[in-house]
Amino acid sequence: MLSPGRSGLFDGLFGRGEVAVGDDDWLQAMLDTEAALARALESAGLVPAGTGAAVTDAARASEFDVAELGSQAVLTGNPVPALVRALTERVPAEARQAVHRGATSQDIIDTAMMLLARGAIEVIVTDLAAAADRTAALAEQHAGTVMAGRTLLQQAVPVTFGLVAAGWLMSIDDARADLGRVRAGLAVQFGGAAGTLASLDEAGPAVVALLAAELGLAEPVLAWHTDRLRIIQLSAALAGACAVLGKVARDVTLLAQTEVAEVAEGSGEARRGGSSAMPHKRNPVASVVILGCTKRAPGLLATLATAAEQELQRAAGGWHAEWETLADLLRLTGSAASWAVELLSSLRIDAVRMRTNLDAARGLPMAENVAAMLAPTLGPVAAHDLVSGAAGEAARQGIALPDALLADESAAAALAMAGVGRVELESATRPENYLGASATFVQRALTAHRRHADGQPGRSPAHDR
Amino acid sequence: MLSPGRSGLFDGLFGRGEVAVGDDDWLQAMLDTEAALARALESAGLVPAGTGAAVTDAARASEFDVAELGSQAVLTGNPVPALVRALTERVPAEARQAVHRGATSQDIIDTAMMLLARGAIEVIVTDLAAAADRTAALAEQHAGTVMAGRTLLQQAVPVTFGLVAAGWLMSIDDARADLGRVRAGLAVQFGGAAGTLASLDEAGPAVVALLAAELGLAEPVLAWHTDRLRIIQLSAALAGACAVLGKVARDVTLLAQTEVAEVAEGSGEARRGGSSAMPHKRNPVASVVILGCTKRAPGLLATLATAAEQELQRAAGGWHAEWETLADLLRLTGSAASWAVELLSSLRIDAVRMRTNLDAARGLPMAENVAAMLAPTLGPVAAHDLVSGAAGEAARQGIALPDALLADESAAAALAMAGVGRVELESATRPENYLGASATFVQRALTAHRRHADGQPGRSPAHDR
Amino acid sequence: MLSPGRSGLFDGLFGRGEVAVGDDDWLQAMLDTEAALARALESAGLVPAGTGAAVTDAARASEFDVAELGSQAVLTGNPVPALVRALTERVPAEARQAVHRGATSQDIIDTAMMLLARGAIEVIVTDLAAAADRTAALAEQHAGTVMAGRTLLQQAVPVTFGLVAAGWLMSIDDARADLGRVRAGLAVQFGGAAGTLASLDEAGPAVVALLAAELGLAEPVLAWHTDRLRIIQLSAALAGACAVLGKVARDVTLLAQTEVAEVAEGSGEARRGGSSAMPHKRNPVASVVILGCTKRAPGLLATLATAAEQELQRAAGGWHAEWETLADLLRLTGSAASWAVELLSSLRIDAVRMRTNLDAARGLPMAENVAAMLAPTLGPVAAHDLVSGAAGEAARQGIALPDALLADESAAAALAMAGVGRVELESATRPENYLGASATFVQRALTAHRRHADGQPGRSPAHDR
Amino acid sequence: MLSPGRSGLFDGLFGRGEVAVGDDDWLQAMLDTEAALARALESAGLVPAGTGAAVTDAARASEFDVAELGSQAVLTGNPVPALVRALTERVPAEARQAVHRGATSQDIIDTAMMLLARGAIEVIVTDLAAAADRTAALAEQHAGTVMAGRTLLQQAVPVTFGLVAAGWLMSIDDARADLGRVRAGLAVQFGGAAGTLASLDEAGPAVVALLAAELGLAEPVLAWHTDRLRIIQLSAALAGACAVLGKVARDVTLLAQTEVAEVAEGSGEARRGGSSAMPHKRNPVASVVILGCTKRAPGLLATLATAAEQELQRAAGGWHAEWETLADLLRLTGSAASWAVELLSSLRIDAVRMRTNLDAARGLPMAENVAAMLAPTLGPVAAHDLVSGAAGEAARQGIALPDALLADESAAAALAMAGVGRVELESATRPENYLGASATFVQRALTAHRRHADGQPGRSPAHDR
Repeated sequence: MLSPGRSGLFDGLFGRGEVAVGDDDWLQAMLDTEAALARALESAGLVPAGTGAAVTDAARASEFDVAELGSQAVLTGNPVPALVRALTERVPAEARQAVHRGATSQDIIDTAMMLLARGAIEVIVTDLAAAADRTAALAEQHAGTVMAGRTLLQQAVPVTFGLVAAGWLMSIDDARADLGRVRAGLAVQFGGAAGTLASLDEAGPAVVALLAAELGLAEPVLAWHTDRLRIIQLSAALAGACAVLGKVARDVTLLAQTEVAEVAEGSGEARRGGSSAMPHKRNPVASVVILGCTKRAPGLLATLATAAEQELQRAAGGWHAEWETLADLLRLTGSAASWAVELLSSLRIDAVRMRTNLDAARGLPMAENVAAMLAPTLGPVAAHDLVSGAAGEAARQGIALPDALLADESAAAALAMAGVGRVELESATRPENYLGASATFVQRALTAHRRHADGQPGRSPAHDR
Repeated sequence: MLSPGRSGLFDGLFGRGEVAVGDDDWLQAMLDTEAALARALESAGLVPAGTGAAVTDAARASEFDVAELGSQAVLTGNPVPALVRALTERVPAEARQAVHRGATSQDIIDTAMMLLARGAIEVIVTDLAAAADRTAALAEQHAGTVMAGRTLLQQAVPVTFGLVAAGWLMSIDDARADLGRVRAGLAVQFGGAAGTLASLDEAGPAVVALLAAELGLAEPVLAWHTDRLRIIQLSAALAGACAVLGKVARDVTLLAQTEVAEVAEGSGEARRGGSSAMPHKRNPVASVVILGCTKRAPGLLATLATAAEQELQRAAGGWHAEWETLADLLRLTGSAASWAVELLSSLRIDAVRMRTNLDAARGLPMAENVAAMLAPTLGPVAAHDLVSGAAGEAARQGIALPDALLADESAAAALAMAGVGRVELESATRPENYLGASATFVQRALTAHRRHADGQPGRSPAHDR
Repeated sequence: MLSPGRSGLFDGLFGRGEVAVGDDDWLQAMLDTEAALARALESAGLVPAGTGAAVTDAARASEFDVAELGSQAVLTGNPVPALVRALTERVPAEARQAVHRGATSQDIIDTAMMLLARGAIEVIVTDLAAAADRTAALAEQHAGTVMAGRTLLQQAVPVTFGLVAAGWLMSIDDARADLGRVRAGLAVQFGGAAGTLASLDEAGPAVVALLAAELGLAEPVLAWHTDRLRIIQLSAALAGACAVLGKVARDVTLLAQTEVAEVAEGSGEARRGGSSAMPHKRNPVASVVILGCTKRAPGLLATLATAAEQELQRAAGGWHAEWETLADLLRLTGSAASWAVELLSSLRIDAVRMRTNLDAARGLPMAENVAAMLAPTLGPVAAHDLVSGAAGEAARQGIALPDALLADESAAAALAMAGVGRVELESATRPENYLGASATFVQRALTAHRRHADGQPGRSPAHDR
Repeated sequence: MLSPGRSGLFDGLFGRGEVAVGDDDWLQAMLDTEAALARALESAGLVPAGTGAAVTDAARASEFDVAELGSQAVLTGNPVPALVRALTERVPAEARQAVHRGATSQDIIDTAMMLLARGAIEVIVTDLAAAADRTAALAEQHAGTVMAGRTLLQQAVPVTFGLVAAGWLMSIDDARADLGRVRAGLAVQFGGAAGTLASLDEAGPAVVALLAAELGLAEPVLAWHTDRLRIIQLSAALAGACAVLGKVARDVTLLAQTEVAEVAEGSGEARRGGSSAMPHKRNPVASVVILGCTKRAPGLLATLATAAEQELQRAAGGWHAEWETLADLLRLTGSAASWAVELLSSLRIDAVRMRTNLDAARGLPMAENVAAMLAPTLGPVAAHDLVSGAAGEAARQGIALPDALLADESAAAALAMAGVGRVELESATRPENYLGASATFVQRALTAHRRHADGQPGRSPAHDR
């Protein structure tokens, strides 16, 4: 389950899944860029036939010494010049002119970054789709499972777990639509030293187009060496995915609390969720680790947004600050998404406990409904205040809301005036009678999810018009 | 030039332009939401005819006491309950049932926030369009103005100022395309206490649609009380605009340095750019203030992304952290955009100084071109190293690159072998002979800008296919 | 309760307490700096006797037009040049030479910022001291109140509420010690245009010392125009205080949840904690608003840390980004601290519910204790695993841990081998028998708090050595 | 020069120096904590004699399989439970009871984090001391080297390079004083599952003290599992060091610009500062890479400050977000400090170019001085405006300021009235006559630096009183 090539102490937690942004991945992406450039140059007729294949042949990361490249990078502030030397040595003499021709270091690193981002997004979008499907199943299955809605961590009015899941679903689907949009904008970088491609004379733009085609990346209007809006858009979409997953995980940790116990992480692995000290512990590991990933996204996003103030034709530091930061953001988003698939695939829902917790509030969450019955007679504000008083009394005495209302002289009078008796009161304080459009909203979310699966992501309800 | 209703000590700097997010604007936006809700309820047949108009009539911010509402807000953690009471008092008795019916405080505040964001985006997009047009004019006018490209703050290869402006142009156009996209997604918030609209029974969804139509906002599939992806998308688009403007301003401060002096801020106002101490100072005030605005965006964005981990059906704190933060981000982006219009409208370009600065480098920025002439004979790496040595010598002795090359024995031999004489060398080190596809790229940017103006924003070149 | 001069829509929430950082406060602080400078110049014999008093006399914010100064600030990028002109006009002719002599705009704004920070810290430290005293009382009073400790939001082992409060106490005391330390480092800024005080010839350093003495600020070794470490230290101490208060508020929201109900916010105000929709709601307003303040601190801190990369002798933008940001951070920290005093002064503790919640876990939180009894016989890992299995069974069947252990054959055998019978098991699973050093730790915290009150803040226990 | 055990693609850039925070370092630090705990338990008489040594003997990272531990960590959300199992297997049976006794996972990870931080701070402080010494030498050597002071990137008034270096010096010394203070506060973490040390009965506090002594860390009053102020303080001190180094690097990139050329990075390594494309490039690699490190600190700091809102007795996610983030911050600060030693040790200063650049402004930077000569006659505002006008004229015509003044009728009249002739004017516009207290300030900084080296860090001048 670890990322390819990742086997560190924390990689199972923060590097889970298939996102590949390790040193070997960087190196291969840079080599893929150099190879594609050689092929593009050949297609453009700028280098002899066969040179593209020769460079491509030599461009295998496993043949290069990462440590040596890393150590040479201190001379120039990035690893590309050393890589170009090493690659040149590995190609036949006649193909050397095709190596890095027209390019500057930033062309190679930026394009490699786009390739890494594309690969990561594919992984993340796949995981988000799986998470969304599982969430849709939860929403459908629990469209009628009544539970307490909670605002500011207090019981509010009843909802269904299906509606809660529908909310998660919409946000996951939106996040992957965003990533899809961003992916389409990932563009090749190729401008030469200062964006003019001067060393290719007038052939530059043609090579840009060919290079983009070789790599399957978008062709930009101009080199974007110091126009980093793409990086911000990419980072924001990743941070958005993290925010969405963090919200789901936060909800799970809250609903899984010992005293709430409405959901539980369901993995059956031995020792899963255990503590080094406490034998009884069954910690919600997936949720906790998701939060451990997602809480880091905003800081990384801020770094990338800050770094975007880049000077003239190549930034002194701002560009360099992006490399590891973006890789971390890709890795952490990927890890959170991978954990989310597990979390949502094995989440156990305790519908009985949901109802028990709601019933323990003895009608209070339906106070709004009672107030509405009194509003036509008393006016909304007075009705609100009267029911509020009775609700306070009910809480203090531990009695049911209808009893508190009927025991209060002025409330009783108002109820009588409004023609509301005990039967009506008890009906009004039954949770299943106060779910509003929950079921409709769940259906709307499921419909939107199906449209999304059909390639029509959207955030408005599909009206049958 | 100050924002409407803003007249504070720093508002000329950080609150310039028409973005309106002050207390009165918030209040009016909340009242507009309440009024639209009353009209929507009336359209849905839930309240008597005429109540929508009655509430709308009363919903004028100037009739309310902001300080009193602010002071009441401490009771409930937000100003809406007090506002609802005050509004209810101001409508005829028969219309009271239409005030806030079905809504929760968050419905009102979130929708108001969307209204403020929409208004702000309109202002910002207008200013960005003006800035882009002016930048396009600069790009066109200076497509042939040669200057030094600078990477890592060192002279690199020649570019044209037109190409620099074209880069600014693309990023400004992309930023406003982003804002336009985000604007279309601004959605009404209406879910009642916990997203079920229980107090409206099954009529809820119809009222959502009517409310969205009343306000011209998008209709969401579900209430998004704790799904804050929209807020992140909005904030990221604003921070993206800031990043783009900050880059332009950074470039201007660098090009306007005393020792570079290739551009100058051109406002002719008396005392403009002056110092409290130094009579000779002509500071680039617009650029500096833009940076003073834009440097704050990433931190605000991080706050909003962090705040998006929102609990269950209403967040305890995360939601509250958004209000002032988002308003600040709207205000600062608006101010930066407004300053940018001035900056770009009056920027003075000194083409002679540009050429002088480039010529002072005595051919060094064209070293790459010379290396390319030697590469076929020597191979690219050896050619690079040989020219690099001569370039070092030229710099040390303060002589021109061709002279340094011809004075070096091995270089002279290589040049002879490659058939490169003084004439070829001098031609190769003339900046205007080493501009590559600069002119083409400028034209591509101008074409893309015109397509953008025609409503077809895009980030790929328009190929005539 | 609103900050002086603050009466905005959100000021009751985010601007509570006495921190004064509004426009009038800024203006007065700048004028105080100018006045102190005039007096310092007079003391240094550089201007005629009486001029200091004359300038001081004119330096009253109420006499100046903030809007006019704000509008003039656009000329120069800061309001000081306009302020100097306006102040000069208001002093007698013979005193004019004392106005702003030797100073640059940044001297005035930075020193004003230090004055605002000092005033704010005094307010905040006072509020934190009150909050700490109240927390100490809670710790003392509840040193024996047993409750569930909760890790990863799951019941862990028992603690006392006194220990929880002791933890809050230590962090609040540490945060105010930090603020105290930072306050002592707040230094006057006075360097003239580029830090040389050239316009005062050799008298500069003497004036710096006199100015520092006039204002009661520290005297720096050098002007710190572009050395912003002080700002970072100040901001970090404020963000630290926010973090500490946010943790307390987060704990309260969790302990106050409907299903936990171990604490409640105790303000008795009518309508306090109410909802615009739900009559039964008693929201933990103080905690929620504290979180609404404190969640904004990290982003503001990041902005200030980012802004510290300041160019040469005065920054182009980085400096300007500090003004509103630091003021916001001071205001929000002040508001959180003021709310915290109320929160901690009226927090209601339900010791019975604490015990009930713990007992509902039927001995599971003491599983660690049981494992420890078996460890000598089985070894720690096997003991842990055996008890873990029984704990799982207990949870599944809803029976008590001792019963689950005795019903399990291999567990029963191990218990027998270890000489542990039902009596020992039941004793070991009584919470009050598994509190470890809780009482000692509470006493250590109270002792440290008393030492803090005596002016000896420290973070190590006071050993009687 | 790479960090021990670091040999990645970017480690030469962002992981330079001796800071050790890789997986093996984490693992050894956790093992060191477990070993010290065993020894502490033995000293407290809780485990048999010899067990401490036995555990210590087994606690060698090289004996453990990082990948296996990392993969086991997914079960529990952190690697400690698996590590405890593996360590237990490696100790003799009689010593097993001493492994992890009383501890919870967080005790081990937090204490390990403190050990890593202590080691890193030692490295960083050593590098900062070397950087400071070299900066002090520059300040001393160039106390009389006149150059242009630059504010908002425009020439302001003259300064000396010695004063610039003195400013760097003060900030570096302050940053290391901060780190030293923070280091002293690094405390052991030992509280058991929920801070009570229940499994050690009343012996807990004694073991805390012994453990602290074993590791040379501070003894806290209480466990600080969810009181993260220490982490914020540590992070802020690191971010402060980054800010200071980033400012130095920013200044170097600006002063090293082709058109300014007043300083140059002096490393003589072949290919140093080269470009993959441009043979003439000599990029300021050290400065650029320092900025690439330091620009990431604020985002990491924000993450750590945000993560500090930790729930109850152990945080669900906030704690986990700290591990890699803090390690990155330590590594990047260490790398920046290591690069800074090289930068400051080899920085080349071009005093002639400094003077040339200043002289090119033909007296304008001394305009303030001229205004001061006229102020007694005209009043300060009128004097400022008159000289400002002449300065504008001088700039426009490219003539010297004295000439512009004398050519202006009203200026000439004012000068005559003030008794200022050409001789006085030319003297007043000589840079060396307008350095104010530069030399004094340099001496103050050097004195403060020497006191710092003597162990008396301080930020106020040492007055001989």
